[in-house]
Amino acid sequence: MMSATMHDVSPAQALAARLRSQPPRIGLLASGPLDAITDVAGVRVGHATLDRDDVQTGVTVIDPHAGDPYRDKVPAGLAVINGFGKSVGLVQLQELGQLETPIALTNTYSVSAVAEAQIRQCGQANPETGRSLPTVNPLVLECNDGFLNDIQRMAVTGDDYLAACTQAGLQPAQGSVGAGRGMSSFQLKGGIGSASRRVPMSHAQPHEAIQQGRPVPRTFTVGALVLSNYGVLPNFCWGGERLGPQLATLLDDEARAQAQAPEKGSIIMVLATDAPLDARQLSRLAARAGAGLARTGSVYGHGSGDIALAFSTAYTLPHQADRPMPAVSTVHETLLDGLFQAAADSVEQAIVHALWWASPVTGRNGHHRRALRDLLARLD
Amino acid sequence: MMSATMHDVSPAQALAARLRSQPPRIGLLASGPLDAITDVAGVRVGHATLDRDDVQTGVTVIDPHAGDPYRDKVPAGLAVINGFGKSVGLVQLQELGQLETPIALTNTYSVSAVAEAQIRQCGQANPETGRSLPTVNPLVLECNDGFLNDIQRMAVTGDDYLAACTQAGLQPAQGSVGAGRGMSSFQLKGGIGSASRRVPMSHAQPHEAIQQGRPVPRTFTVGALVLSNYGVLPNFCWGGERLGPQLATLLDDEARAQAQAPEKGSIIMVLATDAPLDARQLSRLAARAGAGLARTGSVYGHGSGDIALAFSTAYTLPHQADRPMPAVSTVHETLLDGLFQAAADSVEQAIVHALWWASPVTGRNGHHRRALRDLLARLD
Amino acid sequence: MMSATMHDVSPAQALAARLRSQPPRIGLLASGPLDAITDVAGVRVGHATLDRDDVQTGVTVIDPHAGDPYRDKVPAGLAVINGFGKSVGLVQLQELGQLETPIALTNTYSVSAVAEAQIRQCGQANPETGRSLPTVNPLVLECNDGFLNDIQRMAVTGDDYLAACTQAGLQPAQGSVGAGRGMSSFQLKGGIGSASRRVPMSHAQPHEAIQQGRPVPRTFTVGALVLSNYGVLPNFCWGGERLGPQLATLLDDEARAQAQAPEKGSIIMVLATDAPLDARQLSRLAARAGAGLARTGSVYGHGSGDIALAFSTAYTLPHQADRPMPAVSTVHETLLDGLFQAAADSVEQAIVHALWWASPVTGRNGHHRRALRDLLARLD
Amino acid sequence: MMSATMHDVSPAQALAARLRSQPPRIGLLASGPLDAITDVAGVRVGHATLDRDDVQTGVTVIDPHAGDPYRDKVPAGLAVINGFGKSVGLVQLQELGQLETPIALTNTYSVSAVAEAQIRQCGQANPETGRSLPTVNPLVLECNDGFLNDIQRMAVTGDDYLAACTQAGLQPAQGSVGAGRGMSSFQLKGGIGSASRRVPMSHAQPHEAIQQGRPVPRTFTVGALVLSNYGVLPNFCWGGERLGPQLATLLDDEARAQAQAPEKGSIIMVLATDAPLDARQLSRLAARAGAGLARTGSVYGHGSGDIALAFSTAYTLPHQADRPMPAVSTVHETLLDGLFQAAADSVEQAIVHALWWASPVTGRNGHHRRALRDLLARLD
Repeated sequence: MMSATMHDVSPAQALAARLRSQPPRIGLLASGPLDAITDVAGVRVGHATLDRDDVQTGVTVIDPHAGDPYRDKVPAGLAVINGFGKSVGLVQLQELGQLETPIALTNTYSVSAVAEAQIRQCGQANPETGRSLPTVNPLVLECNDGFLNDIQRMAVTGDDYLAACTQAGLQPAQGSVGAGRGMSSFQLKGGIGSASRRVPMSHAQPHEAIQQGRPVPRTFTVGALVLSNYGVLPNFCWGGERLGPQLATLLDDEARAQAQAPEKGSIIMVLATDAPLDARQLSRLAARAGAGLARTGSVYGHGSGDIALAFSTAYTLPHQADRPMPAVSTVHETLLDGLFQAAADSVEQAIVHALWWASPVTGRNGHHRRALRDLLARLD
Repeated sequence: MMSATMHDVSPAQALAARLRSQPPRIGLLASGPLDAITDVAGVRVGHATLDRDDVQTGVTVIDPHAGDPYRDKVPAGLAVINGFGKSVGLVQLQELGQLETPIALTNTYSVSAVAEAQIRQCGQANPETGRSLPTVNPLVLECNDGFLNDIQRMAVTGDDYLAACTQAGLQPAQGSVGAGRGMSSFQLKGGIGSASRRVPMSHAQPHEAIQQGRPVPRTFTVGALVLSNYGVLPNFCWGGERLGPQLATLLDDEARAQAQAPEKGSIIMVLATDAPLDARQLSRLAARAGAGLARTGSVYGHGSGDIALAFSTAYTLPHQADRPMPAVSTVHETLLDGLFQAAADSVEQAIVHALWWASPVTGRNGHHRRALRDLLARLD
Repeated sequence: MMSATMHDVSPAQALAARLRSQPPRIGLLASGPLDAITDVAGVRVGHATLDRDDVQTGVTVIDPHAGDPYRDKVPAGLAVINGFGKSVGLVQLQELGQLETPIALTNTYSVSAVAEAQIRQCGQANPETGRSLPTVNPLVLECNDGFLNDIQRMAVTGDDYLAACTQAGLQPAQGSVGAGRGMSSFQLKGGIGSASRRVPMSHAQPHEAIQQGRPVPRTFTVGALVLSNYGVLPNFCWGGERLGPQLATLLDDEARAQAQAPEKGSIIMVLATDAPLDARQLSRLAARAGAGLARTGSVYGHGSGDIALAFSTAYTLPHQADRPMPAVSTVHETLLDGLFQAAADSVEQAIVHALWWASPVTGRNGHHRRALRDLLARLD
Repeated sequence: MMSATMHDVSPAQALAARLRSQPPRIGLLASGPLDAITDVAGVRVGHATLDRDDVQTGVTVIDPHAGDPYRDKVPAGLAVINGFGKSVGLVQLQELGQLETPIALTNTYSVSAVAEAQIRQCGQANPETGRSLPTVNPLVLECNDGFLNDIQRMAVTGDDYLAACTQAGLQPAQGSVGAGRGMSSFQLKGGIGSASRRVPMSHAQPHEAIQQGRPVPRTFTVGALVLSNYGVLPNFCWGGERLGPQLATLLDDEARAQAQAPEKGSIIMVLATDAPLDARQLSRLAARAGAGLARTGSVYGHGSGDIALAFSTAYTLPHQADRPMPAVSTVHETLLDGLFQAAADSVEQAIVHALWWASPVTGRNGHHRRALRDLLARLD
């Protein structure tokens, strides 16, 4: 418990000053250099943002590796924490434990356009898909940004998806960008956030199995990217502080009335790791996203599609059976706890980043979402 | 065991004659008057069929009732028998145990177009969806008809979906129609099939609970509609007879070579019933589709998306909480066996009907699928 | 944010004083009169406690109603948050959505003895079980109390189970009693805790459907009982305060060393409600236990069997099909959020109570677990 | 279609003669030398049979390898085809994808005794289980043999389990032995059956990955062992022939009345393979047991606990993280179809063997089950 430091600064003032100056840091594990999902080697993120009057939306792409994921599939797992959602691609992902396209995020009513774009993208690289080769499984996850964005316009196009793919890089913008452009969280502006955590493995074994006997220490990285569009303000917790009730007093009447509304949002939580996990283990990892989410004040509201997906970059699975399967030495089950902690912490941190970096947006019918930082600036 | 009847007709000849004359009848339960899913009161089926050169595909719609399913939702359950499939809408259906659109069937790469059409259809009837009302959950199931149909063209349009809805009626065409136009089963022509079974309930209780005390006997109906696009010929069983090997001898060399190919199809099995079941019970009912499917020679091949969905017409669930919820007396769990038998039998019968009514189709690159009946006619 | 009140009491001292005086209260919903699962009418809880040298264990029973649950089954749902557990009865509970015995909690290696006792208990009341009647499905959930209790002795007997049933009442003891006798949480003494929350339903509809048209306001109760045996001290959060690191400084070296150990515990979380929910909805309710659990510092550790089970007392399901099924009007899905909040809050509160009421225990090999309150008393 | 061969033997007589002479052979794949689960190298099976008046029951053990499965765990997957069952150990098996004891089969009310015996057995080999080592997860699957066996006596003891372990070998007895002693199928005598199928892999890749580059052809084995206690006679199919109705005419009145009873049995289906599959793939393999089961006339009756479990002997997983994890090259997903066919075929064949080898048993209250072969002998 901290002791009061300066007789002329109240603890409340000190806290407010701290809250204004920087986002809280979650947990004790170290971050990677970017504190983003792109700390997992090979992963890149791109956005296309649509910002014109009633159209406040976009698309975000997570590329698991630099190659063609249809030809070199990526092991993946899933946790449907609350299945009120319209994502596509999850049934096959769960059956086969792999993904075969970039992961795309967008608004609920633009899922179809983006899925079609993924089909065409794969077809251009692999002209025989749907003919002599199997059809590709599009993978598009979504939240409903209908408060700020006129979702019925289905404004996102296939070109937007391709632009996001082209633009993908290592330093993803966060906040009101890409698929996050129109998203809301806790009646404030939500959007895209990312974070990473590094997990030292205390046993040399996983390294040895992978790297053939050089028993050097090994650290794995877990990265998270969220599309944050959930939360009711009274429940809002910020780095462990329940700020919601106090922030509510700073809202005007209209916004306060909205803050009484039931949960209608959603959150998509994508985890990447370079640890060699199989699909079952990745599903276990994905389930820990729910712990990070709960700490921020969510009880997985009825109307909130809370979906977590995890993939590993440690190996890929060839599309064709005539190419050799990798010999994978997965992490021993009893060593997963560090990765589980990293999953929960990086998801909570990514949510923190989404709100921290979110800029205010005015959209459909003049609806407006304020930025958390603007409210924090008024705390005293 | 039958005894030989006529000295001048061999048993094989008699069997062949029987096989040519009519489809086998599955099981001992009676059918409804139409022997189709439309025997479940309120259910209607419509098709739009695309038949032009390399485009051999379509869309089929199952309407659960005459009203707006978004406003009056339908209890539903799911069984993912093999999840190699690209359907949309299943995650939310499983979480909420209800469906809120017509059920649409189409080819794998037209799912997005049909899902968009469902969104627009719902938006026209309920302009506030995605704004003050929740987004609608499109429900589109699919098989890959890429052998006969140039699937990369994504030929099915929203207008085709609407045409199928408009055309929906009580006497659905079967075989090479609607979504079934380009489908193959057992290297023969597959497509749409339907059937129904009636289940007498030996106990008066379910009736009493529903109809308030009039203890008259009660019979429930289970109806099935399948989109049949699965199966390898050597395993083909037809009403309990393993005809596959014999039929294979009637194929030309090219077709026989194809019959060695691995399972790449899929089957969608939709069950309707007027029995008052809840979502959990409907999931149990859906699982029995897998038994009917297995009897025809399927082992749920790796590449076959085998999905079963069941819904009840006995009650609906209001969209808005200010309308009263129905007081439902579900069927006692120990009385489900008759319904389970009906589910398995009607699915097998629907598969039989799909193949029986399928007409031959020539499509993409001159690929051709023969009709089963043309092969049966050559048996002797 | 509180302001400093008295110039001669530091904020840290004020916090410490508050922490010593009473357990933190979770959330904004009101509790029932007992703040225990027994606030749900009809539910009773009993314990049998074994406290002799190396045997520090017991059994706890939750009785869902005063009748015979085999004859009048109780709707129930399940959430396997982390399935590292040896409970019995969950497979059938999930399939049928009901339970048919009291819910028993005990240590991992006494599950068999208690399950046998449940079989015998049901057989005495229903002599034809396993003959002309179906076998009964025992339902026993467990945690591993092997640190304090010599688990290999399998010390709990069938008589202990029956004693707990006999002793069942409305004011359950909490802390180091019953199945909680030997349990540890956060390297401190864990055990049994309970709590309840009341949820006003803003719409009259559920009431009307149940009580036939008298549109009076309606409040539902959600109660929780936990067997708390999970947690690593550094992560410990107490009513939103991360006390773990500070408490760790109060431990002696040996205890601090243990606090570095990986998660090896488990937690069983049982929810009861008088809201009319079906099994699917009860599974959704159970999943929210995971949110309450996460807030206390759990990331659902690999080795922790984290299981939540929820049941409703609003109606029962007759064993025999010749008795009428109830006509149930379930709560409208969009009104579940209050119940979800209550589930998460009452689970967290029950965990708080388990630690608050836990008395220190010395058991196997002189192993000792301190009581949280003894550590809190040393905070300053 | 066969042609009539001898003018003086009717086809019905020929069929009857064939049915009497040998069990039908399922499918086209070759069997291993024993046509039993023990064709999978390392797997052994043992029985203990209790045969005294009203006690007609027993225990059967499947040992996955010669070592200690707690220390060298076995990858495993699960398919709950119908969860009306009281098995123990499945929740953890599903979470961790492994098993750590021999697989034990027994009657429903003896599960607890056998689970305790497994705990003690593991504790003797590993004295620190439940202390410094995790508790062991007993794995006991069951069917209800209450028609022939006085199940309330809980007659099976821990010593019986140990005797079955000791007796385990490569040539398991089949029929009315071990756990199968008191089981019924199709109102006839059921019990234990086993079979195997061999699957040539057309691609050298899996072999290479496992055996480091020697590109010789490779064949995998799938073995099945069933505890068969399900089925209603009218639905009985025997190698594709629906014999049930004809056999029913051979029963006396009392037995025929029983044959109208609803499904109250269960079946446990255990699959072993030497193919290197991970837990997710093993769950997919287990699901194909349902196809083999359906072909025999099952629709997965409400009251039938139909559980399938699959394990691989290709590698083991060390209990302790300080031992190296194996580098496993799993079978390419698109090559699973042969294994799926083998799973379905070997399960159906094992059911055939269970009924073929079953001897008649008289048990509780003089209840009697006839052997199928005695009925077949009366066909003409």
